[in-house]
Amino acid sequence: MEANISSFPDFDSADGVQEVSRPEDVDFDKMPLIPAIVQDARTGQVLTLAYMNREALALTLKLQQTVFWSRSRQALWHKGETSGNFQDVVGIRLDCDGDALLVLVHPHGPACHTGAMTCFYRAMEPARG
Amino acid sequence: MEANISSFPDFDSADGVQEVSRPEDVDFDKMPLIPAIVQDARTGQVLTLAYMNREALALTLKLQQTVFWSRSRQALWHKGETSGNFQDVVGIRLDCDGDALLVLVHPHGPACHTGAMTCFYRAMEPARG
Repeated sequence: MEANISSFPDFDSADGVQEVSRPEDVDFDKMPLIPAIVQDARTGQVLTLAYMNREALALTLKLQQTVFWSRSRQALWHKGETSGNFQDVVGIRLDCDGDALLVLVHPHGPACHTGAMTCFYRAMEPARG
Repeated sequence: MEANISSFPDFDSADGVQEVSRPEDVDFDKMPLIPAIVQDARTGQVLTLAYMNREALALTLKLQQTVFWSRSRQALWHKGETSGNFQDVVGIRLDCDGDALLVLVHPHGPACHTGAMTCFYRAMEPARG
């Protein structure tokens, strides 16, 4: 039932876009760290969930590459700055509540620090009885 | 450049799956509310970011439909219970750190309370100068 997506054409989807938003529409006052879903714009594969604060989003828009706030290091984190696996941003979507971002990217390499293409490489099965 | 995805074949992807995980691998002790990305398993479209606590995940696995924790209502929320727009779960992925979920679904209808298919219907443009 589950198909391999590597043969999918470029995903780069504007499907569902109805409005324009701006960085000031993100509700950083309610949530200083906003979850940012990173999706491969070509394949549609979800790569990572990371977090952005106001400055990370501003830098992402400026550099057109993903910049996150690392909760473990408590510092801005330009994805790829050590690994070389930058993520070129081709689109950003804001959700209805203004408290989640979807970032469409062309990745230079694997998203995960383990070397996996996606951080979501573990399929969940029910709890052991 | 951006293509419409409505013509995409079933996405239902096992691409990138390398391991099996179980609910007890989710780090609810660190984060009682875990972000859950909901993705249309057919089109690859990201629909919603919602949150699950331990009980919501257990119910999601049991019902094979999405159940979240509503932060605004502070209550369990079986998606579709009022709208009829249930989301049948066809796969769940856990990320490398055990603190984010990706839920692949077949939606019965729009994901967003606004009636939009996806909550991510706002394309972001840079801040006004």
